[in-house]
Amino acid sequence: MGKQAIGVVGLAVMGRNLALNIESRGHAVSVFNRTREKTDELIAEFPDRKLVPTFTLEEFVNSLEKPRRILMMVKAGEGTDATIASLQPLLEKGDILIDGGNTHFTDTIRRNQELAKSGLHFIGTGVSGGEEGALKGPSIMPGGQREAYDLVAPILTEIAAKAPDGEPCVAYMGPDGAGHFVKMVHNGIEYGDMQLIAESYSVLKQVVGLSNQELGAVYTEWNKGELDSYLIEITSKIFDKKDEETGKDLVDVIMDRAAQKGTGKWTSQNALDLGAPLPLITEAVFARVLSSLKDQRVAASKVLEGPVAKPFSGDRAAFIEAVRRALYFSKVISYAQGFAQLRAASDEYKWDLDYGTIAKIFRAGCIIRARFLQKITDAYSKDKQIANLLLDPYFRDIAANYQGALRDVVIAATSAGVPVPAFSSAIAYFDGYRSARLPANLVQAQRDFFGAHTFERLDKPGSFHANWS
Amino acid sequence: MGKQAIGVVGLAVMGRNLALNIESRGHAVSVFNRTREKTDELIAEFPDRKLVPTFTLEEFVNSLEKPRRILMMVKAGEGTDATIASLQPLLEKGDILIDGGNTHFTDTIRRNQELAKSGLHFIGTGVSGGEEGALKGPSIMPGGQREAYDLVAPILTEIAAKAPDGEPCVAYMGPDGAGHFVKMVHNGIEYGDMQLIAESYSVLKQVVGLSNQELGAVYTEWNKGELDSYLIEITSKIFDKKDEETGKDLVDVIMDRAAQKGTGKWTSQNALDLGAPLPLITEAVFARVLSSLKDQRVAASKVLEGPVAKPFSGDRAAFIEAVRRALYFSKVISYAQGFAQLRAASDEYKWDLDYGTIAKIFRAGCIIRARFLQKITDAYSKDKQIANLLLDPYFRDIAANYQGALRDVVIAATSAGVPVPAFSSAIAYFDGYRSARLPANLVQAQRDFFGAHTFERLDKPGSFHANWS
Repeated sequence: MGKQAIGVVGLAVMGRNLALNIESRGHAVSVFNRTREKTDELIAEFPDRKLVPTFTLEEFVNSLEKPRRILMMVKAGEGTDATIASLQPLLEKGDILIDGGNTHFTDTIRRNQELAKSGLHFIGTGVSGGEEGALKGPSIMPGGQREAYDLVAPILTEIAAKAPDGEPCVAYMGPDGAGHFVKMVHNGIEYGDMQLIAESYSVLKQVVGLSNQELGAVYTEWNKGELDSYLIEITSKIFDKKDEETGKDLVDVIMDRAAQKGTGKWTSQNALDLGAPLPLITEAVFARVLSSLKDQRVAASKVLEGPVAKPFSGDRAAFIEAVRRALYFSKVISYAQGFAQLRAASDEYKWDLDYGTIAKIFRAGCIIRARFLQKITDAYSKDKQIANLLLDPYFRDIAANYQGALRDVVIAATSAGVPVPAFSSAIAYFDGYRSARLPANLVQAQRDFFGAHTFERLDKPGSFHANWS
Repeated sequence: MGKQAIGVVGLAVMGRNLALNIESRGHAVSVFNRTREKTDELIAEFPDRKLVPTFTLEEFVNSLEKPRRILMMVKAGEGTDATIASLQPLLEKGDILIDGGNTHFTDTIRRNQELAKSGLHFIGTGVSGGEEGALKGPSIMPGGQREAYDLVAPILTEIAAKAPDGEPCVAYMGPDGAGHFVKMVHNGIEYGDMQLIAESYSVLKQVVGLSNQELGAVYTEWNKGELDSYLIEITSKIFDKKDEETGKDLVDVIMDRAAQKGTGKWTSQNALDLGAPLPLITEAVFARVLSSLKDQRVAASKVLEGPVAKPFSGDRAAFIEAVRRALYFSKVISYAQGFAQLRAASDEYKWDLDYGTIAKIFRAGCIIRARFLQKITDAYSKDKQIANLLLDPYFRDIAANYQGALRDVVIAATSAGVPVPAFSSAIAYFDGYRSARLPANLVQAQRDFFGAHTFERLDKPGSFHANWS
């Protein structure tokens, strides 16, 4: 019996769908699961596919061509460590372990370095696109040893999503934790996108008074233009969906308590560590947290009053267009922050990330796929070292033409008492980033006053302390 | 020769000033430093004080009454671990190690638990007030074994700052890391206060066009009312200070790059871990980070244009009062977030924190000391379990009466292109917290659409998944 070019450990939905995806490209795939039921189920469901079931790790490892390529799709954290510990004694120098789980990049760095001591290769890869993406074509963000990536690149390229121009959405991200890091920032950006869309919904509903039907039409329309993206597309469909039980619009029946799995939080915590300003995504994370305090909010709504609601009296079409521009420009600002974080990380962890390629592989397969990503790729192909995307001519024009709309929307929402933490944070960041002078001189004066922390001067280098008293 | 009731290890400025403070209350103090120079210098400078120099740790430990009370004022992190490792073999059951350094509370929890195995007590304490506070009376926030605290309480009480009503600014915070945690949140709140003051400065200067002299007068005036606090007081003095070298106003000579030592960052990272919304302090941390990108900002200021500046045309006195109200209400919101974080931490780490007492010991000695803190103590004495300070009648009234001013200031700054990330975040949080319904239903719909993450319903309990396609 021949050996397989690749095997998958862990047959929960993501692992099983990736195995099926690989098989569908013409590769026989060894499969293994810690409990045999899942393996039996998979084989029973797809008896005609070239899936080779194995029931011990020895059998699994022996069923693979050398160097062995093993894709682990197990529970991130202890699950990954346990799987590695069981596999390691069975592997040989040059074998390649691939962690496709939702792993914190610092764990990936640690595992990559530890396994390298035994001559084993370790690739940590982001896989985005959910269950369906795993089956049909995800966006794939692998990091680890370059030579190991080259050995798995053909298969990853076959199973990846294809962008509109046919390019596969996979590329080598960089050493050790680079792949999982990029996936983390992808998810943080996803939090930002979703919060911005939610705020646009809130403003259109509460300030303009649009019905769900009108909202659906607005997002459908927006999806035809520069906002064209998966998240806008599904938003338009959400407003059209009826609740089968009550016949109401489903969106009105859904509880407004947003859950999270922690990758947005990781992104913000890392930005704080790197000293890379990421206020918009962080406001999005906190907005989810605040939404989860539903009982407190309901109680507070009864005692904390806001402005008296007024019927909308302006030009509806003009205001809707202002919200569209506010959303697009805020999205630009959010990505500018996220890509600046990637840059800070690339410097800090010595990854030499290729930002244009990263935007490229986000174009299909993943949740944040959008026409707009091409503009980011274009910006980096014009200037690989651009400090911030807002400085690129295309985005500079968006800033010039759309900032007025973003200001108007923040002002309208603030007057009306509609919370827009991400929109507000977007314009504050924009105004801060374009300020040659910020009031941080006062902060430095205070720090020197109370703690002798010293300050720098504008007119000459050095550290100075004033005699304040 | 008699033995001393307490000893200090680490004679950098904080350690030496605390030793002098303790001595000034009539206690002989054993002192030790890793390098003997600092010890010699201290004794040479203060030959008549009851400071007992020791030059080996053995000598130091033997010079102390049992149970020994040892205050460590060493470099947080490895310095603390190294000091503990050197001291531990010389100590006996029941001895008390006190870490007064700037330690992350999780390190304190770990050390407390490890040392407890050998029967040693470990107190981690926040000490706020800088060099001068250490010498004359800091605010002290100790956490650790209650019985150990009781043995050091008399000395800590003597050296602590005294509030206006004479109460000493020290109290037992709770087990293990509670003291260092409270100090961390104190510092996060300090970041928020400083950023809010900086934004008020920015708006008054850029929107109204106040001169430094006028600004000094405004803050002097504000310090006589409900904003009465140490930070407002020093702000007023900062605007009056001339640069000795150039004769210019010093504040205009100081570089606008705010530095930080990491405690604000810790506070935000922990809030993200706890799931406690802390957007305002986090915006303040990111504002410092953004300020540090001075070169990028200067470059961006040349290509990213904002609104055309207009001379102020409104009622100056009325707008200055609006800024005062915006500042006070935003401060209320910031403390509401910080104290909600303390509450989330108390639940998570099982500390049983006493929020009213915490506000009490902030009233003197520390950087955020302010008349306003009494209002927080009052709120908790009325309702120890209040979910959020904004719900207390006093703060509710502030919200009702001042929110219009905060909205006006955010709107004016947003129109003028003046960045006010903390003010904006304050009103967005307020409007979010008082919203019975937030647009998180859309976020949950999206998550269920693309990832089958399920949603809750408003009309009945349970988890649901819709067939979206």
